[in-house]
Amino acid sequence: MSNWEARYATRANRMRASEIRELLKLLDQPDIISFAGGIPDPALFPAEAFRKAYERALSDGQAGPALQYSVSEGYAPLREWIAERLNDLGITCGIDNIVITSGSQQALDYLGKLFLSPSDTALVTSPTYLGALQAFNAYEPNYDRLAVDQGNMTPAAYHDAAARSGGRAKFAYINPDFSNPAGETLSLAAREQLLDLAEEMDIPIIEDAAYQGLRYDGDAVPPILALDIARNGDIDATRTIYCGTFSKTLSPGLRLGWVCAAKPVIRKLVLMKQAADLHSPTINQMAMYHAAVDIYDEQIERLRSVYGRRRDNVLAALEKYMPEGVSWTRPEGGMFIWVTLPEDIDGAKLLARSIETERVAFVPGQAFHADGSGTNTIRLSFSLASDEIADTGIARLGRLIRQVMSEAI
Amino acid sequence: MSNWEARYATRANRMRASEIRELLKLLDQPDIISFAGGIPDPALFPAEAFRKAYERALSDGQAGPALQYSVSEGYAPLREWIAERLNDLGITCGIDNIVITSGSQQALDYLGKLFLSPSDTALVTSPTYLGALQAFNAYEPNYDRLAVDQGNMTPAAYHDAAARSGGRAKFAYINPDFSNPAGETLSLAAREQLLDLAEEMDIPIIEDAAYQGLRYDGDAVPPILALDIARNGDIDATRTIYCGTFSKTLSPGLRLGWVCAAKPVIRKLVLMKQAADLHSPTINQMAMYHAAVDIYDEQIERLRSVYGRRRDNVLAALEKYMPEGVSWTRPEGGMFIWVTLPEDIDGAKLLARSIETERVAFVPGQAFHADGSGTNTIRLSFSLASDEIADTGIARLGRLIRQVMSEAI
Repeated sequence: MSNWEARYATRANRMRASEIRELLKLLDQPDIISFAGGIPDPALFPAEAFRKAYERALSDGQAGPALQYSVSEGYAPLREWIAERLNDLGITCGIDNIVITSGSQQALDYLGKLFLSPSDTALVTSPTYLGALQAFNAYEPNYDRLAVDQGNMTPAAYHDAAARSGGRAKFAYINPDFSNPAGETLSLAAREQLLDLAEEMDIPIIEDAAYQGLRYDGDAVPPILALDIARNGDIDATRTIYCGTFSKTLSPGLRLGWVCAAKPVIRKLVLMKQAADLHSPTINQMAMYHAAVDIYDEQIERLRSVYGRRRDNVLAALEKYMPEGVSWTRPEGGMFIWVTLPEDIDGAKLLARSIETERVAFVPGQAFHADGSGTNTIRLSFSLASDEIADTGIARLGRLIRQVMSEAI
Repeated sequence: MSNWEARYATRANRMRASEIRELLKLLDQPDIISFAGGIPDPALFPAEAFRKAYERALSDGQAGPALQYSVSEGYAPLREWIAERLNDLGITCGIDNIVITSGSQQALDYLGKLFLSPSDTALVTSPTYLGALQAFNAYEPNYDRLAVDQGNMTPAAYHDAAARSGGRAKFAYINPDFSNPAGETLSLAAREQLLDLAEEMDIPIIEDAAYQGLRYDGDAVPPILALDIARNGDIDATRTIYCGTFSKTLSPGLRLGWVCAAKPVIRKLVLMKQAADLHSPTINQMAMYHAAVDIYDEQIERLRSVYGRRRDNVLAALEKYMPEGVSWTRPEGGMFIWVTLPEDIDGAKLLARSIETERVAFVPGQAFHADGSGTNTIRLSFSLASDEIADTGIARLGRLIRQVMSEAI
C-alpha cells in the first residue's frame, strides 16, 4: 500500500513511541540496577490466592458464566465489593456509580474520549502521570498548568487561555496521593481549593487514585470525591470522577480498575465501553472478586511493610550519597521519589551515561511535563529496591552526579 | 454539576444506548425462546482445558509474569501460535504482523480511532455488523454502501461522495465468512473485486474474520488478506487488516482477539494500545495459549458438529413453518440466518408482539443498516437452538408471521 502514513491522517497519526519507553526496553539486562519501572514487585503477588480464585471461578456451575460474554458495567459482586471499600473512605456510593475498566489506564483513555475534542484544554500538574498524557494525546488536546499548591490561575484566566487555543477547558486531572511521578500528596486545603476552582470553572475533576491504598506513614487525606460528596450531599451531584485500580495492590496482569462517579458519567462510560471492547474479561472479574474477599487486607498490610521499608532504604541512601544541590521528595506512600538536580544537569543525558558507566536506570523527568520543562529532574521508583540494591544503586548514582557536577565547574 | 451534557460535547456525546440492546436485556426470562444473542453455547466451553490452562499459567515460576504488566503487542507464544494457524490459511506472516487485542471489538475501535476523523467515510455492507457501526460511530464517520456482489459504485464515485460529505473515504469494512448478521459468504471472485476496488481507491480493507473457523459445509474461500499477499508478494505490502478472535471458538469471557496486518499498521496499533489500556491481560493470554495448544482442533470439530446440526434444525423448521413471501439465507457456517419478511412487516414491531404473545425473541434487522433501511428483516441466531427449541420456536414465529400477514390483507 503506497501511502499508509497519509491514510493515518487522524489524531492517531501524531502518536509516536515515547523515547523513554524505548529506552526502558533496553533495561532488561540483568546487571542493571533499575529504579525505572513503576511496577509492583512480582515476588509480592498473592499467587496462591489467585490460584484458588481461578479454580473457584472455573468450578462447576461457575465456569459457564466465567467464560461467557457479560455486561459492560462489570461483574456485580466485584462492583459491590469496591463500593463497600469506597464507602469506608467516605465515598458514599452504590454499584450504579461504578464501572469496571481494563486498568485505570483504560479509564483515562475513555475519559479523554468522552470529554476532549481537538484543541480543547486539559488542566494537569507539572509533572504529571506520563500515561495520562499519552491517553489524552490521542484526542489532541492542549494542556494548561494546574498548580494547586503554588497558586492556580483564576478560572477566567484558564477559560480565556483555553478559548485562545481554540477550544474549551474540559477537566482537571490530578493524582492526589503519592503522585506518579512526584511522590507528593495534595493537602486537604489544596483539595478543597481544587474543588473551588472546578466549581467556579464548572469542569469535572479526574481523581487518579492509583496509589491511594499504599500509605506507609502520615494521616490519610480524604479522597477529593469524598469531599465533593460532603459538599453536595450526594454522589450524583458531584463533579469528581474517581479512577481506582487493582494493579498496584493485587495484580496488574489481570488489567482491572474502576471508575466511581455520578451515574450520568457512569452511564456514558458504560456505553463507551460497550462500543469499544464490550466488557473487561468476565473470568478475571470473578477471580479478582474472590481474591479480594480472601486476602485484600492482608495483602495491603504486606505491601505497606515491604514498600515502606524500601522507601526508607532509598531515602537513607539519598541522604548518604547525594551531593549538595540535589533535592528530593519524601513520599508518604506509593512507589516514587522525585529528584531535582542542579539546573544544568539534563536527566536524559544523565540516564544515557548512567546506563553506560554505572549500570543504574531511572526515568528522566522531562516526559512527565506537558510543557517540556523539567529537564533537570528524574524519577526513582523504590518498589524493587531491596536493602542492597538501594544502597549500591544510589551510591553509584550519587558518584555519577558528583562527577557530572565537577565536570560542569 | 450543572451541565454534564453540555460538557460532553464531543463525539462521545452522540453515543446512545441502542434500543435493541436495551430490549435484549429484557429477554433473560426463562420462558423466552431466544434466537437473539449471537453468543456461543456455554455448555460447549472447554472448561476443563481452561482449568488446566490457568493452573499452568499460575504454577510456580510462571505466576510472577502471569500477574505482572507485559508488552502491548501481546504474549509472544500466543502470537506465534496465531501466526502458525494463519500461515495454514495462506496468510504468510510472522509475529511482528500480529497484535493481541481485547476481543476483535477492540480491534474495530482502534481501527476507527486510527483512520476516522469526523466526516470521513467508511464503506460498509448493508446489513453489516452492528458492533462495528457502534465502534466506528464514536469517531463520527459517514457511511457509504459497499455492495460487492450486487455492484459497487466506481472508485471515483465513492471518493466524490466522501468529499461531498466533508471528508475522505478511509476504509472498506467487511465480514466475509458467514457474516453477522446476513450469514452470507463472499465468493472468491467478489473478494478479488473488493481488492481491485480498494487498490483503485487506495484504501485499506478491514477483514472481520470472527466466524471464519466455524464452517459446517462447502469449500473454504481464502481470506482476503491471503489473496492480498498472493497479489503483492509480502504481507508488508498489503492493505488488508485481518481481525480474528477466540470469542466464537474457545471463549469470549477472556476477551482475546488479534489483528494481523502489515507491520506499519501493527506498530501504530501497538502504540495506540499502550496509550489506551497498556496490554490485554497477561494471565489470559498465557492461559489462552495453553488451552489453544491443548484442544483447539478438537474444540473446532465439536463446535462444527453441534452448531452445524443447529443450523440444520432451524433451516428445516423455517422450511416447515414459514409462509410464502418469507425468504432466508442458508449459511455455510457461523451463527446467523437472515430472514426477509414481506415489505410491509416491520421487524421491530414483530419483535415486540412476538415477545408478548409467542415468547420468541430475535433481533430486528434495521439496526444492522447504516442507512436505516432493512425494516422488514430479522436476524435469527441458531447457536443455542437445540432440536426442540428450533422446532417450537420457529413454529411459534411462523404462526405469528402468518397472522400478521393475514391482518395486513
